[in-house]
Amino acid sequence: MPKLLYPTTLKLDIKSLEGYSVELKPYDGKSPFADEDTDAEFLVTWSNTPDNLKDASKRLKKLRWIQSLAAGPNDVLSAGFDSSIIVTTGSGLHDHTVAEHALGMLLNSARRFYEMRDYQLQGKWPGHLGGPQPDRPAGAFTTLRDANILIWGFGNIAKKLTPWLTALGATVRGVARHAGVRNGIEVYSEDKLPELLPKTDALVMILPGSESTHHALNAERLKLLPKHAWIVNVGRGTSVDEDALTAALEKGEIGGASLDVFEKEPLPEGSSLWKAPNLVVSPHAAGGRPQDAEALIAYNLRRLLAGQELKNVI
Amino acid sequence: MPKLLYPTTLKLDIKSLEGYSVELKPYDGKSPFADEDTDAEFLVTWSNTPDNLKDASKRLKKLRWIQSLAAGPNDVLSAGFDSSIIVTTGSGLHDHTVAEHALGMLLNSARRFYEMRDYQLQGKWPGHLGGPQPDRPAGAFTTLRDANILIWGFGNIAKKLTPWLTALGATVRGVARHAGVRNGIEVYSEDKLPELLPKTDALVMILPGSESTHHALNAERLKLLPKHAWIVNVGRGTSVDEDALTAALEKGEIGGASLDVFEKEPLPEGSSLWKAPNLVVSPHAAGGRPQDAEALIAYNLRRLLAGQELKNVI
Repeated sequence: MPKLLYPTTLKLDIKSLEGYSVELKPYDGKSPFADEDTDAEFLVTWSNTPDNLKDASKRLKKLRWIQSLAAGPNDVLSAGFDSSIIVTTGSGLHDHTVAEHALGMLLNSARRFYEMRDYQLQGKWPGHLGGPQPDRPAGAFTTLRDANILIWGFGNIAKKLTPWLTALGATVRGVARHAGVRNGIEVYSEDKLPELLPKTDALVMILPGSESTHHALNAERLKLLPKHAWIVNVGRGTSVDEDALTAALEKGEIGGASLDVFEKEPLPEGSSLWKAPNLVVSPHAAGGRPQDAEALIAYNLRRLLAGQELKNVI
Repeated sequence: MPKLLYPTTLKLDIKSLEGYSVELKPYDGKSPFADEDTDAEFLVTWSNTPDNLKDASKRLKKLRWIQSLAAGPNDVLSAGFDSSIIVTTGSGLHDHTVAEHALGMLLNSARRFYEMRDYQLQGKWPGHLGGPQPDRPAGAFTTLRDANILIWGFGNIAKKLTPWLTALGATVRGVARHAGVRNGIEVYSEDKLPELLPKTDALVMILPGSESTHHALNAERLKLLPKHAWIVNVGRGTSVDEDALTAALEKGEIGGASLDVFEKEPLPEGSSLWKAPNLVVSPHAAGGRPQDAEALIAYNLRRLLAGQELKNVI
């Protein structure tokens, strides 16, 4: 029976993987592999150390398939595995949790919980944020109701997030490489950004990290946003020009930015982002919790054993 | 033509009130009434000063109807108006904004944005809140997905909030004076609290202020909540025993509390709530923004002129 190694770096319901002609065995993703496990043919990975993956690439000579639980398994791809090994990603396992975090960041921005916290730490009541308020004042992002939300990078996370935003009363538009209507939402190509950005109350960025998305949000595009617009980034830090963003915040050219990802993580101690006005730091916390991983592993395991094509192949 | 006075304390779309046999006139709710306006028969109120309302009760001798835009117009009721005057409330105008704020408070608690902010202000990266995390760990409130949310006080705000919570994956139960199924949600009577509280990940309180709700959440009931449970209060501050809550937080007997309302507002400078662990202060900011007020005014105005029964009569 072929052996499947699963990591102890997360809690998996292993019972739900039983019933296949495969031996299921746990391994520690932070240490070298045990000699007796080097005959494994299938490997599930989650937050393994680089050394552990390098060890796998050298010593697991029979390996045929790696199921990463990360959406973008750069760690596996750079560990030196033989190119004949099939690698499948954990794309889809993080949609719900990333979308929930993005919604939280949008509400934290609109309802200004971060500013309330600043006052609380000084023992001060932020009276200007409570009591009678104008409803949806022009030139401010104070609620999702009737707000124009633009989602840049319209994949599965956006599709999860969008119905929540529309239920809360927002109007959602998308931007992606290919235009079209997806899940009832109008998605535009990037060349329409000059028309879309000026009408945006909050821009949610869910772009992957790649050369083509590097500094996608640059000084020129920041200038197209209204003065009250917020930016939420749950994609990759490299898609935002942080120097241009800091300058825009310091000059009050945009309303604020809530970032879960940064060009360099952890955000360096001396970074001017820490204290930029209306800049909210979240420590790459949107994802990192694969959900229903067992179902994906089981699905791909069955298909592999049956000689069928796998899901999420790189 | 009878005269309707509308306040300048909020922005109203007055055009949408035209077409009735009524004279529409603005007034300043912070000053005495102009002599020429003391013949008004209809009065819309919103965050008027107590002196202004007292002035109205003495000098607006022809007054027949007061439309308050507040959900609970205690200010109007205590201003000394003749009991023959019909008073209608702004119940329903605040449902969406209060529900949105409550959702924001729940996500702020679960995704720990307040704790991230504490770190940010010190220029520190809260690494323990980011990176790979266990998914829905036992004994923690980290997501709305599969969370058990109990809403105590199941009126229109709860009905607005509930579908958002279920869309995010939560299981919602209600508690109210009368048991039954409302909008597909099981609502229990208060005598079931001893069974419901121990199974609750987050308790959302939307109780009105009254003698019967005074300290509804007391030390005894707090002890029934799991150690990780959060409390969100967007109802009235008097429904929570703040001393008992502070003690529970300091002893770590509950997960945290996010409060928009307090027994005394603004929260007094010396209150021990300011620094209680995992206590989040919001300055009575959930409501305070009447939405679609014009539609309610128009509806009641039409019915009054037609001799029909009004909506939201006290």
